[in-house]
Amino acid sequence: MPPPDLAALPTPSLVLDEARMLRNIHRLSAHAQALNVSLRPHLKTAKSAEVAQRLSGGVPGPVTVSTLAEAEVFFDAGYADILYAVGIAPNKLKRVAALRARGCDLTVILDNAVQADAVARAGVPALIEIDSDGHRGGVAPDDAALTAIGGILHQAGVLRGVMTHAGESYNVSGRDAHAEFAERERAAAVAAAETLRAAGLPCDVVSVGSTPTAHAARDLSGVTELRAGVYMFFDLVMAGIGVCDVDDIALSVLTTVIGHQPARGWTLVDAGWMAMSRDRGTAAQAVDQGYGLVCDAAGRPLPDLIVSSANQEHGIIALRPGTGGTAPDLPVGTQLRILPNHACATAAQHGRYHVLPAAGGALQTWPRFGGW
Amino acid sequence: MPPPDLAALPTPSLVLDEARMLRNIHRLSAHAQALNVSLRPHLKTAKSAEVAQRLSGGVPGPVTVSTLAEAEVFFDAGYADILYAVGIAPNKLKRVAALRARGCDLTVILDNAVQADAVARAGVPALIEIDSDGHRGGVAPDDAALTAIGGILHQAGVLRGVMTHAGESYNVSGRDAHAEFAERERAAAVAAAETLRAAGLPCDVVSVGSTPTAHAARDLSGVTELRAGVYMFFDLVMAGIGVCDVDDIALSVLTTVIGHQPARGWTLVDAGWMAMSRDRGTAAQAVDQGYGLVCDAAGRPLPDLIVSSANQEHGIIALRPGTGGTAPDLPVGTQLRILPNHACATAAQHGRYHVLPAAGGALQTWPRFGGW
Repeated sequence: MPPPDLAALPTPSLVLDEARMLRNIHRLSAHAQALNVSLRPHLKTAKSAEVAQRLSGGVPGPVTVSTLAEAEVFFDAGYADILYAVGIAPNKLKRVAALRARGCDLTVILDNAVQADAVARAGVPALIEIDSDGHRGGVAPDDAALTAIGGILHQAGVLRGVMTHAGESYNVSGRDAHAEFAERERAAAVAAAETLRAAGLPCDVVSVGSTPTAHAARDLSGVTELRAGVYMFFDLVMAGIGVCDVDDIALSVLTTVIGHQPARGWTLVDAGWMAMSRDRGTAAQAVDQGYGLVCDAAGRPLPDLIVSSANQEHGIIALRPGTGGTAPDLPVGTQLRILPNHACATAAQHGRYHVLPAAGGALQTWPRFGGW
Repeated sequence: MPPPDLAALPTPSLVLDEARMLRNIHRLSAHAQALNVSLRPHLKTAKSAEVAQRLSGGVPGPVTVSTLAEAEVFFDAGYADILYAVGIAPNKLKRVAALRARGCDLTVILDNAVQADAVARAGVPALIEIDSDGHRGGVAPDDAALTAIGGILHQAGVLRGVMTHAGESYNVSGRDAHAEFAERERAAAVAAAETLRAAGLPCDVVSVGSTPTAHAARDLSGVTELRAGVYMFFDLVMAGIGVCDVDDIALSVLTTVIGHQPARGWTLVDAGWMAMSRDRGTAAQAVDQGYGLVCDAAGRPLPDLIVSSANQEHGIIALRPGTGGTAPDLPVGTQLRILPNHACATAAQHGRYHVLPAAGGALQTWPRFGGW
């Protein structure tokens, strides 16, 4: 039976299954505790004070953000220990300083001397970003630039430590492969910390993490904190590389059937890419989920039925290419729920979560924000 | 010289060049006038009352929308003649009726008898969607369902006419190919109208359009109105199929350089897919523009420089694969502007336009909205 309240929602709407989310949160918290590291959840996926509250039993802890807008909102919600984990642009330092002046312990990251000079002048604490997998930014742990940047920061008293993120771990599948990337993160960050310390520079913080590596890490000796973001909701990309099961995905988009093209095997719905995002993160995986996997209104997957293509406000539902059998009969007006490829991208298309509460009872509405 | 105000904007920010937009608006208005059809601009790209105002010299005219949220906002802004051009879901009819009760002449579209029954019961005027190119929804003009649906609507006095949209025209390049799709739209819509009239049913409205076909149409005999949306801004997808030049693109995302990976030829910026959207609409075109074409802060394209990959808040800028030469030196702090693949998707990631006014002078801020 579909939860009765869903039928009254406008479509498309973003639905959050709180019980699944709490299970996901507990899973990573327990793993971090077993590994003896602090967890610094990344709030870029959730962008919601209500979700943040459920990460740490209502007591604001350390968090990670991807925009200064997130830093400002979460500071106002009581989170004072914030890492802004995108390389700092010098033109953002005035806003960073304003937030720090209000009492926020906001730390930035950087990987070059131009940023370090600007950050030192502004007196803002920083971590040096380390490149552990060639994914994006960061200084290689054996690059002479590391101690040069560290020196600039230390002279101004703002060197806090190092951080890395193995974004390439998203491109491999299975616990062993992710554990290998977790060890790369650990080894690179710890090597960089040792290089700094050997040069007489402080390095209190050694921060690592991505959702795949955080769950697979077996040993984090030398690491002080772990970061991850999408783990609270999970998504088809994470299921596709074996970090979670499809049944762990806490986020879905409620939609309504508006028509059919029987000769082409199509069912048309009112959730297009505006509701799902244009993210096609499963396209390169073993199982391509199109623009999302289709479930009934109760959240049970309908085998091999995916959103095979999408326009702005139209989704076309069809059997996955190569699948035998026929698509189920889904009359006009039928409500469905679509699991997203990428929770960060899909959630960003919506202004609120419609929450199925873990304790049961009526749907709740939790606002979410966007922007920079 | 970059416009001086841009340097003060936070990054990433959405920039709109009003002079280019006005030129684009004038071009299609003049073409519609020459073809002797009414233009019903689609506001799904703009979602802004200020942009809408510039479509028709400040006098609200007929418009098209893709969500009921758009219908409500534009009705409140003075637009009373609105076509909601996504197949109506029965659960939306209460909201449609409420808007009509307030005086909005809102018309819906549909392509099946279940919808027609619901719409007839609700007393809401409708166009029958015609399938002219196999792209998505619609009844084939020679399908017996056409007059059956028309009959249901006419009995309730709510049959207004027919409409079609050749979405497949986006997948072909050049004016001749688009003119052929324009003729397919015209022929299918006019044939459907004639079938309805021959059955004794009224068909006052014969509505066609997509941005490629609207610009390429040579003759629209029998058509009463033309629809198009992205034409006001244009984008790299439209330039890639020859509907506009790159210099016509009115929308860009302002970003700041935050770092480099010289060994990989990468420049990192603070505009990732959150600012650009995940749309990769040029991936299947002759020239793949990655996540966008890079310009200097004044809006001049930097040859062959694209956003080659993107994470949530990071863009990686590099030369287009296969390009000789070296990338320009873009120091940390440099501001750049990125032209989008798909204006509808990129604009949707932002809450406001920062407008370079056609008349010169200080930047203006025009709010835009989203949601359903």
